[in-house]
Amino acid sequence: MSATFELTKELIRLDSITPRDAGCQPLMIARLEALGFVVENMRFGDVDNFWARRGATGPVVCFAGHTDVVPTGPVERWDSHPFEPTVRDGHLFGRGAADMKASLAGFVTAIERFVAAHPDHQGSIALLITSDEEGVAHDGTVRVVDALEARGETIDYCIVGEPTSTDRLGDTIKNGRRGSLSGRLVVKGQQGHIAYPHLAKNPIHLLAPALTELVAEHWDDGNAYFPPTSWQVSNLNAGTGATNVIPGTAELKFNFRFSTEQTAETLKARVHEILDAHGLDYELEWALSGNPFITEPGTLTAAIGAAIEAVTGVTPELSTSGGTSDGRFIKRIAKELVEFGPINATIHKLNECIRVDDIEPLSRVYEETLARLLLD
Amino acid sequence: MSATFELTKELIRLDSITPRDAGCQPLMIARLEALGFVVENMRFGDVDNFWARRGATGPVVCFAGHTDVVPTGPVERWDSHPFEPTVRDGHLFGRGAADMKASLAGFVTAIERFVAAHPDHQGSIALLITSDEEGVAHDGTVRVVDALEARGETIDYCIVGEPTSTDRLGDTIKNGRRGSLSGRLVVKGQQGHIAYPHLAKNPIHLLAPALTELVAEHWDDGNAYFPPTSWQVSNLNAGTGATNVIPGTAELKFNFRFSTEQTAETLKARVHEILDAHGLDYELEWALSGNPFITEPGTLTAAIGAAIEAVTGVTPELSTSGGTSDGRFIKRIAKELVEFGPINATIHKLNECIRVDDIEPLSRVYEETLARLLLD
Repeated sequence: MSATFELTKELIRLDSITPRDAGCQPLMIARLEALGFVVENMRFGDVDNFWARRGATGPVVCFAGHTDVVPTGPVERWDSHPFEPTVRDGHLFGRGAADMKASLAGFVTAIERFVAAHPDHQGSIALLITSDEEGVAHDGTVRVVDALEARGETIDYCIVGEPTSTDRLGDTIKNGRRGSLSGRLVVKGQQGHIAYPHLAKNPIHLLAPALTELVAEHWDDGNAYFPPTSWQVSNLNAGTGATNVIPGTAELKFNFRFSTEQTAETLKARVHEILDAHGLDYELEWALSGNPFITEPGTLTAAIGAAIEAVTGVTPELSTSGGTSDGRFIKRIAKELVEFGPINATIHKLNECIRVDDIEPLSRVYEETLARLLLD
Repeated sequence: MSATFELTKELIRLDSITPRDAGCQPLMIARLEALGFVVENMRFGDVDNFWARRGATGPVVCFAGHTDVVPTGPVERWDSHPFEPTVRDGHLFGRGAADMKASLAGFVTAIERFVAAHPDHQGSIALLITSDEEGVAHDGTVRVVDALEARGETIDYCIVGEPTSTDRLGDTIKNGRRGSLSGRLVVKGQQGHIAYPHLAKNPIHLLAPALTELVAEHWDDGNAYFPPTSWQVSNLNAGTGATNVIPGTAELKFNFRFSTEQTAETLKARVHEILDAHGLDYELEWALSGNPFITEPGTLTAAIGAAIEAVTGVTPELSTSGGTSDGRFIKRIAKELVEFGPINATIHKLNECIRVDDIEPLSRVYEETLARLLLD
């Protein structure tokens, strides 16, 4: 079996349930230092992170990812132990197999081969690795990016190793993500007996016309890279349980997934405008999970696209769908950023796995991308 | 102290928490039989009821009421024990003092005085007494009325002893009640991830326009006796609690209080029409608590109004406000029906009480009403 396969197994054996690193980063660092990387450990709070760089000039090609994994769920419901890497039916099973220890192993072995063949490559190779991506993500990538930004460090091309493939390795590159903005709205009325509605103010009745307008609102048409911005209510609760009481308040939780046609500020302003136009007495708390970001087709998408075709024979599609990732933080200091990794069908589930035959090709894609960006 | 006061205290001592009678009805029956009443015990399920009548001709004047009381709540928070009648500050305290053991005592002593003075009165005096008014009310008045109706028995004038007075004894007679119709609506959507709204159907979004239309609907203008029909939502719940999931269903509970301009059927039809016009996939369960009923000003309102003025000096107003009562059942067999009783400020609360000085006048009002209806 390949070096990438062996390193993937070593990493799976380390039970790095978020936000624990459990020894994954020291393993990677030892191999990177052997290649001449300068490694900076950046521990924030309880979270291990590191930034590693080989080379002093540009362009800077950075691989980014996380060593932490989501919890296993009930271990007895796995067909083999989640931290005991096991091959069955052509797949390697274990928590983090696809999200994203095969990618981490692939980074390391790709760099090892590339540096062995081209010890005097142009530019720089860097890695930005955290152990707090699956959890609250307060002391992970965002803090590393803050530190790098503070000293003026920039990245030309960043490849995040998230599992982006859907049906076949190589079918999807993420070249951006929608923004995510959440709100918790409390509409205030006045509680009372249902037989005396003139003595109460029903917050559900007050909310209804504004809610209808929010549901019907056409936020934007999206653009070449993003679908239209969507607004969805996840929870709406009002009432005491009693059927003869008009409730005092109604609580509504909602979420925007938004394109680069909007900002958090334009969306907030429009929501307040609608609520205010209906004369509502309300409280509204906002939480911005991430701004949208996009890497337009260019040097990086061409390089990794060509690498994927060369290694796998698959022509990848660019996509901005799906949830948030640490790309939202890194994009602040990265000129171009994409995400590419293995098939994501089993991530966050019982019996997470990766096709054994996808592991070495994944590493080859990373290596070929380096070659296209750092060799003449 | 008066005979009415003494009987009220005797009845309060019997802890007839709904649907228990706890000996109240035997106490009343013994005194009625002594006056020549023919008493029929009508026990249905676990519920004691009785029908008593003195006289074989019309008009039939019936007093109606209930011996059961609502639970006490925390006994330690009462200033005196709820089943130990206690006088403080000119008030008699105890569970049921106002709702409605003073009225029951007032019925009995009014009849005793009236029969003693007019043993050969015209027409008939009747009582319809239940111990299941405060609870589910399945085996109480409604069953007695069913039995009376089955044998063709009718009532000309019915006086329900519910506590209708608000600020002063005698200020309010209820000559009808609104109808009450409830619904539980479940709107069906399709659950999904909030980042992929095109793969889900948000039931809150589907419901919103229909809800807005229901809130804005003008059901009727009411009429001379009723305020306009009102529609109110008591509970609206949708969502799994998770903020990234579009829920599969939304549940809405609502209630109509409706005038005699509507029937349950007209209201149901209009609600279905609105929901269907919005193309909703839904389930809707209906529960009719009571149809509206009205006694237009006539012989009974004139008699009890004059009796109240003669005894208390207060000119009563006619009202149809407030919740439901057993009047909704009796009206089926009663040509005219009103409700009249003591001040209702403390009913269903801790430290329920009645003004001591209102107890004997209440009985006098019932007696004077009998006189106006059964003497030339």
